Amino acid sequence: MSTDRPVVLVANRGEIAARIVAAAQRIGAEAVLAASAADTQSLAARAADRVLVIGPAPSAQSYLRPELIAQAAVHAGADVVHPGYGFLSEQPRLCELLEEEGIAFAGPRPETLRAVGDKGSARAVAVAAGVPVSQGRVITDVHDVAALGAEVGYPLMVKAIHGGGGRGIRLATTEAELVALAPQAAQEAAAAFGNGDLYMERYYGSARHVEVQVFGDGEGGALIFGDRDCSVQRRHQKLIEECPAPGLSAERRRVLHDASRALVEALRYRGAGTVEFLVDTLSDDVVFLEVNARIQVEHPVTEEAFGVDLVAAQLLLALGLPTGLPVPPAVPPAVAVEVRINAEDPAADFRPNAGRIGQVRWPRGPGIRIDTQIESGFEFPPYYDSLAAKLIVRAHDRAAAVDGALAAVRNTRVAGLTTTLPMLEAVLAHEDFRAGPVPTTWFGREWESMREKIG
Amino acid sequence: MSTDRPVVLVANRGEIAARIVAAAQRIGAEAVLAASAADTQSLAARAADRVLVIGPAPSAQSYLRPELIAQAAVHAGADVVHPGYGFLSEQPRLCELLEEEGIAFAGPRPETLRAVGDKGSARAVAVAAGVPVSQGRVITDVHDVAALGAEVGYPLMVKAIHGGGGRGIRLATTEAELVALAPQAAQEAAAAFGNGDLYMERYYGSARHVEVQVFGDGEGGALIFGDRDCSVQRRHQKLIEECPAPGLSAERRRVLHDASRALVEALRYRGAGTVEFLVDTLSDDVVFLEVNARIQVEHPVTEEAFGVDLVAAQLLLALGLPTGLPVPPAVPPAVAVEVRINAEDPAADFRPNAGRIGQVRWPRGPGIRIDTQIESGFEFPPYYDSLAAKLIVRAHDRAAAVDGALAAVRNTRVAGLTTTLPMLEAVLAHEDFRAGPVPTTWFGREWESMREKIG
Repeated sequence: MSTDRPVVLVANRGEIAARIVAAAQRIGAEAVLAASAADTQSLAARAADRVLVIGPAPSAQSYLRPELIAQAAVHAGADVVHPGYGFLSEQPRLCELLEEEGIAFAGPRPETLRAVGDKGSARAVAVAAGVPVSQGRVITDVHDVAALGAEVGYPLMVKAIHGGGGRGIRLATTEAELVALAPQAAQEAAAAFGNGDLYMERYYGSARHVEVQVFGDGEGGALIFGDRDCSVQRRHQKLIEECPAPGLSAERRRVLHDASRALVEALRYRGAGTVEFLVDTLSDDVVFLEVNARIQVEHPVTEEAFGVDLVAAQLLLALGLPTGLPVPPAVPPAVAVEVRINAEDPAADFRPNAGRIGQVRWPRGPGIRIDTQIESGFEFPPYYDSLAAKLIVRAHDRAAAVDGALAAVRNTRVAGLTTTLPMLEAVLAHEDFRAGPVPTTWFGREWESMREKIG
Repeated sequence: MSTDRPVVLVANRGEIAARIVAAAQRIGAEAVLAASAADTQSLAARAADRVLVIGPAPSAQSYLRPELIAQAAVHAGADVVHPGYGFLSEQPRLCELLEEEGIAFAGPRPETLRAVGDKGSARAVAVAAGVPVSQGRVITDVHDVAALGAEVGYPLMVKAIHGGGGRGIRLATTEAELVALAPQAAQEAAAAFGNGDLYMERYYGSARHVEVQVFGDGEGGALIFGDRDCSVQRRHQKLIEECPAPGLSAERRRVLHDASRALVEALRYRGAGTVEFLVDTLSDDVVFLEVNARIQVEHPVTEEAFGVDLVAAQLLLALGLPTGLPVPPAVPPAVAVEVRINAEDPAADFRPNAGRIGQVRWPRGPGIRIDTQIESGFEFPPYYDSLAAKLIVRAHDRAAAVDGALAAVRNTRVAGLTTTLPMLEAVLAHEDFRAGPVPTTWFGREWESMREKIG
């Protein structure tokens, strides 16, 4: 470290930037925020010790430019850069630029980012580590996919190899559909991700999304911070997450955790990461989806359920200091539920909105945590994604946590911005969700009737 | 209940009023605040659904008048009144007035308040329930105390029978001191509490203050929510509390919990309460101190450690609804530490101050909870006690919770008000406190040298 008090450069925005600033200050570091010109009055900027403007509002000219971040890190005298999620968090280029400057990166090594950033390669790593994978194939020729489709079996999903965030995913239930959509998907992937390579895998129509939170010491040591269920999804975007995943048998849980541990060991994974799986609700089959080599949006449910600070641990590890993380039990001592409050209109096909926010009223009380970028009187910028805030509620069991989350949603007011709060209330009050795990297809199937009830 | 949506009258002020408003809203009730004229712009008032002004600023003309509270409850259409702590919380009179109106009281029955509100009677109840008590005697004649003193043994404490909050307590280390101070103490007690009756008990010079959180169903059923250590005290006022109490053997813990359970059963205790004990650090002797028949200032450490909402449970019980409380383990799954931020100047003998508050910056992050009456730009009124806010930090073990609390204190800024934050930082950083339990005399002994280091 360059000084007694380490310097953390926060290379992100929104609620996660505020979260990282808090973690930096918690470990006694100076928090320097690398902000676009649109974010100089953000909650993260107000909380940071210093703010450096790295570029104009569009993220292609600011948050997505590794060289600007690296320059800001040098200028700030940073000991470590935390990339948050999205943007450059899984880009080996930023990590490499920082390594050249002798600045630590709060994330995995560049070679790990490469190995798991490409779905084909990630799958190969998983297979080598003995992790159960679905039937899947890389598409070598988009005009000749019928044979591959037969090998994988229908229904199947076509995915961009270099994609992410649920974008660019297509479902084919028959060979005819596959043949028709493959070239189209390749074009879209090329436009969105700069690379049109595709991959296909078996689609489980009634599966849950279950993921495992790992924390590697970079030398093969792995801590497994339990599992999360993130099956309430709209168009592959998570809406509600919980820790631990409900209704998993001890045997199933052990399979998931052991597979994740094997991956961390094989990759000598460094820091926080997530191994995502599908759990088929019919067969109880487990298949590997992907590794998210970053802190995730939904990390707070794990933090609350286990009572740890994963973001502070990322920074401490990157600084070469003890993380203070305990060896966790397989099942955490508490249950936590997170709901994502998006600036979207659930009555108008979730159209995003932005602008001046009026009065915000947050719920208060034990077990309630709010990770937010919005507060009364703030401006919600139109340039970025629509995640405004996350409500996380912890309780002694799932029923109490769900009840607590429902009460918290009902006691939240955000004037001036249209949000997904009514949708979240409808899900939390729905008997299917309350009864236990729902498959990832559930929300899409039930939303229309929920929406009618909201009125 | 008078309507589908229950109405809760909050008969208190400050941080606990905001806490009760939040609990009322959490259970779906309407929160009506009974406020003095000085508190109509408080955080609790802003959060409440309605505010009723019950009288002028001085508490003797507002918060301490049972008939004004009862009138407000009738006027509000309240189903239940929550009295918080202090003020009328342990006064049977308010409870009785409400009973006459058919309004529930979120606290024990009037006869319980009488039985434990008087230290002599509380002691008799404890003895009858088999709870270990110290050698102690009621003083019948303040001019003839030598024989009683010999029976109790020195050093001993002289206390006002009707006192509370640590006021009116005197230490006598010899017979001569006792003879001299007894008449004086009686005069003071008469002036402060309207009653000069005194009581003496053995003083443990190196004891810890350990208390047990109970929750009774009113029919003899008891839930024991573990223990708290509150030994960091200045002049009998708690400064820092933690749950669970560190360094208690399983055997000692069982004695404390069993004794507390016996008291709840004997009293058919209703709702939340605390049984306070001294644990002698030399002999490991346990002696009963008193029952606090209310929610306490330090209840959040128990809530955070066990993952429960005790205030919501108080309201639900009073409304005749299921509390949803689990049967807790003896030791909670997490550790929580609370520090009290008082509007007092630690450099000037803890002189209170008040006035316009500037910018307030709170720490954020997992496991951090803030129960506060202050925010940026608020007025801190001069009429009431000096408790401005409480920081509560939860973690997986004591070391992490203490570290987290230290970081949280260091990352808190309260402009415009002089607070005890520097004192709290000094205690949390002190090797004695970090090493484990300190006796109640520790702070008084160490403060001068801590103060010099703060500068």
